[in-house]
Amino acid sequence: MNAPTQQERLAHQCSESLHSRDRAAQMLGIRILECGPGHCELAMAVTAAMLNGHGVCHGGLLFALADTALAHASNSRNKLSVASICTIDFLRSAEAGTVVIASAMERFHGRRKSSYDVELRDDKTRLIALFRGETVSTDAAVIREGESCND
Amino acid sequence: MNAPTQQERLAHQCSESLHSRDRAAQMLGIRILECGPGHCELAMAVTAAMLNGHGVCHGGLLFALADTALAHASNSRNKLSVASICTIDFLRSAEAGTVVIASAMERFHGRRKSSYDVELRDDKTRLIALFRGETVSTDAAVIREGESCND
Amino acid sequence: MNAPTQQERLAHQCSESLHSRDRAAQMLGIRILECGPGHCELAMAVTAAMLNGHGVCHGGLLFALADTALAHASNSRNKLSVASICTIDFLRSAEAGTVVIASAMERFHGRRKSSYDVELRDDKTRLIALFRGETVSTDAAVIREGESCND
Amino acid sequence: MNAPTQQERLAHQCSESLHSRDRAAQMLGIRILECGPGHCELAMAVTAAMLNGHGVCHGGLLFALADTALAHASNSRNKLSVASICTIDFLRSAEAGTVVIASAMERFHGRRKSSYDVELRDDKTRLIALFRGETVSTDAAVIREGESCND
Repeated sequence: MNAPTQQERLAHQCSESLHSRDRAAQMLGIRILECGPGHCELAMAVTAAMLNGHGVCHGGLLFALADTALAHASNSRNKLSVASICTIDFLRSAEAGTVVIASAMERFHGRRKSSYDVELRDDKTRLIALFRGETVSTDAAVIREGESCND
Repeated sequence: MNAPTQQERLAHQCSESLHSRDRAAQMLGIRILECGPGHCELAMAVTAAMLNGHGVCHGGLLFALADTALAHASNSRNKLSVASICTIDFLRSAEAGTVVIASAMERFHGRRKSSYDVELRDDKTRLIALFRGETVSTDAAVIREGESCND
Repeated sequence: MNAPTQQERLAHQCSESLHSRDRAAQMLGIRILECGPGHCELAMAVTAAMLNGHGVCHGGLLFALADTALAHASNSRNKLSVASICTIDFLRSAEAGTVVIASAMERFHGRRKSSYDVELRDDKTRLIALFRGETVSTDAAVIREGESCND
Repeated sequence: MNAPTQQERLAHQCSESLHSRDRAAQMLGIRILECGPGHCELAMAVTAAMLNGHGVCHGGLLFALADTALAHASNSRNKLSVASICTIDFLRSAEAGTVVIASAMERFHGRRKSSYDVELRDDKTRLIALFRGETVSTDAAVIREGESCND
């Protein structure tokens, strides 16, 4: 296995910095499985507390997982980026106990505007939802003063 | 003030039935301010646990509030409906302490497919986000066997 | 009837300037019924040449009408703006002979990003489609050197 | 090269049947480069008549190309399908003379609802726009009585 490139190390640091401050993602038990420049993979286990009135995972929390994946993928180059418009297409419901995997991939990287696809899949790798998000980048950095920039 | 119509009473019962089973909405402290046939108004106070890595309310949780409003508006005629595709346009961020109000309004009511607009506003009634959701209705009822259908 | 304000006159000039150069809108027979700061109303008659393989107006041409309304509403303050992301929800089909009316309304006006709703209605004022578009403004002007700025 | 399968032949017949009746696609000079079960590739040359007020291809006509690709991909199994909700993300503009290629791919195929991604690329294979469309299928056939079902 090859050593991580400088860009991969930077993506890891951005991801860790973001996650350490993301209390909502922590509340939902979201874990980072993998991250790199413009992409990432996150996991979230559906608990009983996450069910909606129909007895399946609340669509808003599936969206929250996808939106978190969008944040990690779009902030991976240490340029602070925020979501602008997101669309989610709900295809299958997720029951309690399911571990949902979100895979984010950059589709377009512009000077200010970028576009990402996020797929949500269940334990059986069946597609649960398709998410597409547009982000806008700023001139601020993701990693804050005092946070380690070494690996 | 006029007495509620039969349709308004039914909408209230659907809303209560849905909310009593919606553990995710309860976890987020979502409250029902108003509901009727095809519309509703919900509130959610942004707590410190809801902040994302940028220090403002996680977009996924704003979406969850809008999606919950969609559920109450689209299930208000006792025909079980589920979200199909939703789009959210993030316009302003919401800080800790803000009470966000979601107002859902039916724009189209078809035999199976319906369409709703949800506006999210902050304490100063400034627009935070615009949400549009399409739902698909089924033949199942929202109110379950044994739940009171009296008012 | 009151005299138009300066902003209304500017909106008219932007609209005329835009329309005179918009060969696609001319090809589709799009007419401007009304325009002002952040809003407009356009009309398009569905001809036989606009039908799709199912014998009703091609969804792409309904979108083109809505998108043109978006352009007039978002360029009405003489700041050149372009569409970034648009969503259309097709609700009813439009047959040949129908005159479709598009009404665009500004929902959010930011420093760079703005958001608009466009409704498409048929002759019987029935909702045909709901369109939402985000635009990004630039520092360029809509009205070009040499074009009259008088009314 | 292998002989086409029965499903590929059916997809071709559906595509031809649809295209022969699609007067809007013919008006725009849309050509079918390739089609099969759940996918297709179309081309459209941007002419001077397709330009908008900013001097580039009208976004509505780019959408019309993507929407036509959606129709061919979603009707490829001889089950009549119609577009329900579509989102387009405009990334780059297309100038007169550009041949735009639309590639449609099925992402989800449900009993009634299906979801498709369409990419628009220019001559240099640069991404111009990302389109996502949801379709609803009916029980009607695409190929009409009297149309040849032989190849």
